[in-house]
Amino acid sequence: MRVLGVDPGLTRCGVGVVEGEPGRQCRLIMGGVIRTDPDADLAERLLSVETKLTAILQKYAPDAVAVERVFSQHNVASVIPTAQASGVAMLAGARRGLPVTTYTPSEVKAAVTGYGDADKKQVTLMVTRLLRLTEAPRPADAADAIALAICHVWRGGAKALLGRAQSKGARQ
Amino acid sequence: MRVLGVDPGLTRCGVGVVEGEPGRQCRLIMGGVIRTDPDADLAERLLSVETKLTAILQKYAPDAVAVERVFSQHNVASVIPTAQASGVAMLAGARRGLPVTTYTPSEVKAAVTGYGDADKKQVTLMVTRLLRLTEAPRPADAADAIALAICHVWRGGAKALLGRAQSKGARQ
Repeated sequence: MRVLGVDPGLTRCGVGVVEGEPGRQCRLIMGGVIRTDPDADLAERLLSVETKLTAILQKYAPDAVAVERVFSQHNVASVIPTAQASGVAMLAGARRGLPVTTYTPSEVKAAVTGYGDADKKQVTLMVTRLLRLTEAPRPADAADAIALAICHVWRGGAKALLGRAQSKGARQ
Repeated sequence: MRVLGVDPGLTRCGVGVVEGEPGRQCRLIMGGVIRTDPDADLAERLLSVETKLTAILQKYAPDAVAVERVFSQHNVASVIPTAQASGVAMLAGARRGLPVTTYTPSEVKAAVTGYGDADKKQVTLMVTRLLRLTEAPRPADAADAIALAICHVWRGGAKALLGRAQSKGARQ
């Protein structure tokens, strides 16, 4: 299963593609950051995020998209552009007919570090370890997006395993 | 000049197309509300808003798009989906190469009623009068989107007039 993780943002939008199976090691396919010009028109910036995300979806052909859920508790100054960028990211996935799932930061942290209140450094460290990278993903902003993708592989896997267990139970 | 006004929302997204010249009476081309299924997947709902907006852009071919600006002071429960829908609306306009402008509710109210703190009823009343309609636009949610479009025609006009005055001054 190949997953695109998106840590939405208008100035910096983290992206990461990971391949793996539930309960197994994941493999990093790509990690990066989409940047838009802060001086550009808002609508142009959103179009730029969408165009670049669509190019990534075409190039890496993931099976699913995982996007960080935006809360109103986020930084008040950035919550609106972040929500707008997340809307565009979800739209880009849905337009390609892919399932789009959102995860809270706590869910992602818990998935990769075992602890929902883990800090950014811990997340980056665990992403580096889990993918057996020789150094932390660069740019650093990509780590959160990669963690989202890992979270989806594993959580999707947990559901698939549960589904299998349930159908097995039903047969008994 | 033909303008599409969008009052963004995920459950109800107001739309209105108006044609006019700065300082002259505007003509209503269409008004309506895009609805999405509250039980559907978030990404699917955003895709549905974008698909319907794109169909309106194609059918009515406006010269510009005016979208209500979303603030973090908005209703906390709805600010995130509203911001996501606004991002999708701006994207839809930008993708067609149209200029997209955002206006605050106060700017729109001031444009159509002369008073930035006007209530919804006053806005609807003035939209009905300004367009010389025999009754208020239906559904009611469309009135705000129509007011946005009128605001853009008039404000865009103010800028155009200013531009003309300036170039006139430069020639003297």
